[in-house]
Amino acid sequence: MPLGSFLHHPVVQAPMAGGASRPELAAAVCEAGGLGFLAGGYKSAEAVQEEVRALRALTPHPFGVNLFLPQNPSADPAAVALYGEHLAGEAAWYSTPLGDPNRGGDDEFHAKLTLLVRDPVPMVSFTFGCPTREMLDALREVGTVTAVTVTTPAEAVAAEAAGADVLCVQGAEAGGHQGTHRDDPGQDRAALGLLALLPQVREAVDLPLVAAGGIVRGCQIAAVMAAGADAAQLGTAFLPCPESGAHRLHKKALTDPSFTHTEPTRAFSGRPARGLVNRFMREHGPYAPAAYPQVHHLTAGLRRAAAAAGDAQGMALWAGQGHRLVREMPAGDLVRLLVDELHEAWTHPYGTGAREQEGPSGTTPGTTTPGTTTPVTTTPGAAATAAPTDGALG
Amino acid sequence: MPLGSFLHHPVVQAPMAGGASRPELAAAVCEAGGLGFLAGGYKSAEAVQEEVRALRALTPHPFGVNLFLPQNPSADPAAVALYGEHLAGEAAWYSTPLGDPNRGGDDEFHAKLTLLVRDPVPMVSFTFGCPTREMLDALREVGTVTAVTVTTPAEAVAAEAAGADVLCVQGAEAGGHQGTHRDDPGQDRAALGLLALLPQVREAVDLPLVAAGGIVRGCQIAAVMAAGADAAQLGTAFLPCPESGAHRLHKKALTDPSFTHTEPTRAFSGRPARGLVNRFMREHGPYAPAAYPQVHHLTAGLRRAAAAAGDAQGMALWAGQGHRLVREMPAGDLVRLLVDELHEAWTHPYGTGAREQEGPSGTTPGTTTPGTTTPVTTTPGAAATAAPTDGALG
Repeated sequence: MPLGSFLHHPVVQAPMAGGASRPELAAAVCEAGGLGFLAGGYKSAEAVQEEVRALRALTPHPFGVNLFLPQNPSADPAAVALYGEHLAGEAAWYSTPLGDPNRGGDDEFHAKLTLLVRDPVPMVSFTFGCPTREMLDALREVGTVTAVTVTTPAEAVAAEAAGADVLCVQGAEAGGHQGTHRDDPGQDRAALGLLALLPQVREAVDLPLVAAGGIVRGCQIAAVMAAGADAAQLGTAFLPCPESGAHRLHKKALTDPSFTHTEPTRAFSGRPARGLVNRFMREHGPYAPAAYPQVHHLTAGLRRAAAAAGDAQGMALWAGQGHRLVREMPAGDLVRLLVDELHEAWTHPYGTGAREQEGPSGTTPGTTTPGTTTPVTTTPGAAATAAPTDGALG
Repeated sequence: MPLGSFLHHPVVQAPMAGGASRPELAAAVCEAGGLGFLAGGYKSAEAVQEEVRALRALTPHPFGVNLFLPQNPSADPAAVALYGEHLAGEAAWYSTPLGDPNRGGDDEFHAKLTLLVRDPVPMVSFTFGCPTREMLDALREVGTVTAVTVTTPAEAVAAEAAGADVLCVQGAEAGGHQGTHRDDPGQDRAALGLLALLPQVREAVDLPLVAAGGIVRGCQIAAVMAAGADAAQLGTAFLPCPESGAHRLHKKALTDPSFTHTEPTRAFSGRPARGLVNRFMREHGPYAPAAYPQVHHLTAGLRRAAAAAGDAQGMALWAGQGHRLVREMPAGDLVRLLVDELHEAWTHPYGTGAREQEGPSGTTPGTTTPGTTTPVTTTPGAAATAAPTDGALG
């Protein structure tokens, strides 16, 4: 499969638009045997070309570039204008005008696609929709492997039908933007957890799957591979790395206990994205319209101003549900650590003790009877013996 | 560990209060080498005693009984009354009076606990809170293994501190009621996906973990065990079994494409519970107060009337996010099938192809370089070869 030619280890570094994904981060991951990604979103085609050049200068290994698909201009201008009025206080507080919601347009998507066809890269992934068969064919013709982000079995079937080579299966746990093909506020509470989503996609399509969402440990990589994935994609886990371009306050917030949890919000971009709950999310999330990228442009200046002022409560602190467990270390070391953990989980796959009952190293199914298995892990008091059973069954 | 003395296979049948969990279902699971559970919630202590007697007559193997902890009477009576007025139309439609929100009280919790201390069972699990050390000690003294349902690392630490023997780690994907210790509407969007939650709990406590939420396939059992669980608990997967007491419309709805997805709702019970989205959830969910069990008693008659009328749109169709993949077969056969799938996932744990790159059967890490691995699974066109890489790196 295409991934087989790219990955020495089943570890993909998620493209993180907005500054975290830098050529240095992708290069460090590639050098360690993972697959590094550049984030093409929110950048000019020229800037993307620059990053591709920079990355090629840093590593000879395969890498990927992620693009955001243009969104239908279906957002209600009146709703965007109303949200702008709602944010007047923020503009005054940060002494920063709101951005023009209509700048940016298609994020130079077509210019970037043209660039990537003219100067091919090993892999191109897409987020926020399903590319046309023409787009995917154009990339395939120049030898590029294509991936499409999906969040439901139906999106997976659509992406396979369009001709995608690989699917990035994103669970609800994922930090940053949800890659749903169409932003439907009526589905805000329908997002599927990764472990429930994976088998449904695995059984619906016949493509290699990269699993994403809340993964920060090697044992979770082993888990998604057991559930049908060919590799795992990690974003939040790489945020604290020195090679990551994430703001120092963003890096610090991931393990700061004063940030108690993450939630999806439209407050910053107009599309659901998971981040650490802070003041801006609490105050404005409930009023943010489904209007991407209009809201993204509206709040861009506010977020920059908050970062410049060192105010994490006004920044978009994108984070997945595994944020508490992130570790600060060079990206290459992290890839190697994740692979060690993956192999450890492989060696002891069945939690802390049940492996003594199941699996190749254990008893053959059918040869033992309940109650006869040796107790394994430590446990308080009398409960550790099989006696309770007898006591209750006498 | 206690589970080691109970489980021949790491498969636990989730207690499902409200009719689905019958002694016949628990017995079939126990006979097949899993751990069957009786649901003590919503029943009189006498009814629980009857079910325990019935189950003991059906199997000599260990089993469990689940109890709901009494909730603080913190619910605002005015909010409950208002929701009652809101439901007036339903009462008229089903020609059924609303129930008395204040009947039921503590669900006879203390009477059931006294019963289970006087006549011990192998395992007792708790939902909706953390039992006191006294309760857990009383059960341990009679040889009963105790389990506490947790949904966050903090709840896990509290349960371990109280003296629980086992934790049931419930992810957001789970069908039916979320076992959060305290119902806080401010945390409605904070629920953690199972795969993100497991390592956080695994690293926070030193107890055997039973993982629950969206599990309907053996490969998912292998996955949660790789991520730190000792066993998996499945509820929705057992709903369609002939031994399950779930209403035929409930069984049918699980795979009925007209039910597009599940969501958590307070519409039926006043506490967040995940079910297939139907008319009742859509119309009343947004107005349901955090008032459990008051709302449960308020709507009990309506749900019975809807079921009697064959109207699935007025019933509580509890289901986890894996509902689409459930299979209708005898519970014992399902346990055996899940174990076969678990072993298959163990044999081929790394998705469709990456296992050729990783793991005991693969190359030793560090001995190969990216781009040299043999492509594995089938994939459209030129992308299946390593050529794209060269093309892009030339």
